[in-house]
Amino acid sequence: MSFDVADVLRRFRVDNPRGFRLARHDPADLAGTGLTKEGAQDSLARGVARLAALQERLYAQDRWSVLCVFQAMDAAGKDSAIKHVFSGVNPQGCHVASFKQPGPVELDHDFLWRHAAALPTRGQIGIHNRSWYEEVLVARVHPRILAAQKLPPRVVTKDIWKERLEDIAAFERYLSRQGVLVLKFFLHVSPEEQRERFLARIEDPEKNWKYSASDVGERRHWASYMAAYEDAIRGTAAPHAPWFVVPADRKWFTRLVVVAAIVQAMEALDLQYPTPSEAERAALAEAKAALEAS
Amino acid sequence: MSFDVADVLRRFRVDNPRGFRLARHDPADLAGTGLTKEGAQDSLARGVARLAALQERLYAQDRWSVLCVFQAMDAAGKDSAIKHVFSGVNPQGCHVASFKQPGPVELDHDFLWRHAAALPTRGQIGIHNRSWYEEVLVARVHPRILAAQKLPPRVVTKDIWKERLEDIAAFERYLSRQGVLVLKFFLHVSPEEQRERFLARIEDPEKNWKYSASDVGERRHWASYMAAYEDAIRGTAAPHAPWFVVPADRKWFTRLVVVAAIVQAMEALDLQYPTPSEAERAALAEAKAALEAS
Repeated sequence: MSFDVADVLRRFRVDNPRGFRLARHDPADLAGTGLTKEGAQDSLARGVARLAALQERLYAQDRWSVLCVFQAMDAAGKDSAIKHVFSGVNPQGCHVASFKQPGPVELDHDFLWRHAAALPTRGQIGIHNRSWYEEVLVARVHPRILAAQKLPPRVVTKDIWKERLEDIAAFERYLSRQGVLVLKFFLHVSPEEQRERFLARIEDPEKNWKYSASDVGERRHWASYMAAYEDAIRGTAAPHAPWFVVPADRKWFTRLVVVAAIVQAMEALDLQYPTPSEAERAALAEAKAALEAS
Repeated sequence: MSFDVADVLRRFRVDNPRGFRLARHDPADLAGTGLTKEGAQDSLARGVARLAALQERLYAQDRWSVLCVFQAMDAAGKDSAIKHVFSGVNPQGCHVASFKQPGPVELDHDFLWRHAAALPTRGQIGIHNRSWYEEVLVARVHPRILAAQKLPPRVVTKDIWKERLEDIAAFERYLSRQGVLVLKFFLHVSPEEQRERFLARIEDPEKNWKYSASDVGERRHWASYMAAYEDAIRGTAAPHAPWFVVPADRKWFTRLVVVAAIVQAMEALDLQYPTPSEAERAALAEAKAALEAS
């Protein structure tokens, strides 16, 4: 079968908030590619290899950095997407930060503090498994989380979610101006598929460790979460910080879309190995001669 | 003599970029207070005591934090203002971060990275001796500094200074929404007074350590620095993140204005010791009874 990767990505990429509706995105969409799990293996392997090659140049050039933000409901496949997409990449140039519930030190700071500290350095790919978006998702769905943030009452206004989205959008614009390629992935799973995956976690002893009773409780808030995600994507989608709403009911397709999106965006950076200047070339020649004569 | 502190502060406070002109501010201005160095001693002592009392409440309440940014040409009196204004404050609730030239680790990140990491926690006063403003001051006056920042060429546009000011303004707005009281002080010294202070540093052996030949070289760029400061103040002055253009030709007056500005702003926060809830009061009574019976 044949399909155009750029067409597929265009279908999932959201870089303009106008008219975005999460409900129009189908978690089981295959974008008409006709792909099967088996047929996708080769494409994934090629994508991973291409990503590894691009990352070498990113590291050598030492100018850009790449920030991949992953957000999703539980069991949507964040961990496994990270594992399969980045396992070919040299860990020296790749850093994963997983954000759990903030602790007391973190709550003593503004909410970006812990995330900003973990941003990738130039030349690196940074992967944020959950991110500052939790501040407009879980904190919005559960008022007790906002209450625990020790904010002075005066700053907790009725516009707080709009303001937080504005702040996040401004920070991502700043990052893009600093040479950070910002890519945001929402792995979009259906509640039915999540149910199946939770059941598998309960039934399979090797998956038990991934199961948490509180995850299941969150299913009651599904509609609130979807509304919060829609608002977050609308409030922060921009050409310099696009969202990808990735169908997540089939893990093999999720991974393929994620790797394709990262490869496409990194290719647009025109990454190059630094070319030595004339003086540097002369120094290299001199060093070569000295080594050969030794 | 008598004068109204609020009137004096209004004269130096810039919270609206419209019509701001640095040249209209006189480094030797005393705001018609008729104050003398000797007469100012008492006012300074009262201000410092008031600041210490406010800081205790800030710390106990543990909601707001205060960020005082100090910017100035060399020898304008930043260090001595910090010393005299904050020496009465409990160091447990007060943290000074002095920013020198960024090193290799810092250059590997976006420019806010090192500053954001050093922001005060809730309940604290943070003092930034130099700050992110250096990124639109010294980096603007000296193109070699910008060149050393390893930015991808694509993001270094002709709008870079406007963009940086926009980014800084957005970040300060975000901080204010997070419960950070942002106060920015430009200690405004005249080139003539700076010349005298440099000469004193050269002539007095105990001040030699403060003298650096490069500081004197920077005098050639005075006009460029003043233009950059004017632009920075215009680009970022806001009610939630005001600038104070503090006359700095008389150090004793500088300190007085700085402490008065901080006290006034902190008083507007309505800081209170936390009052125990009914349940907490009951627990206190119970603990008291247990202690007394032991």
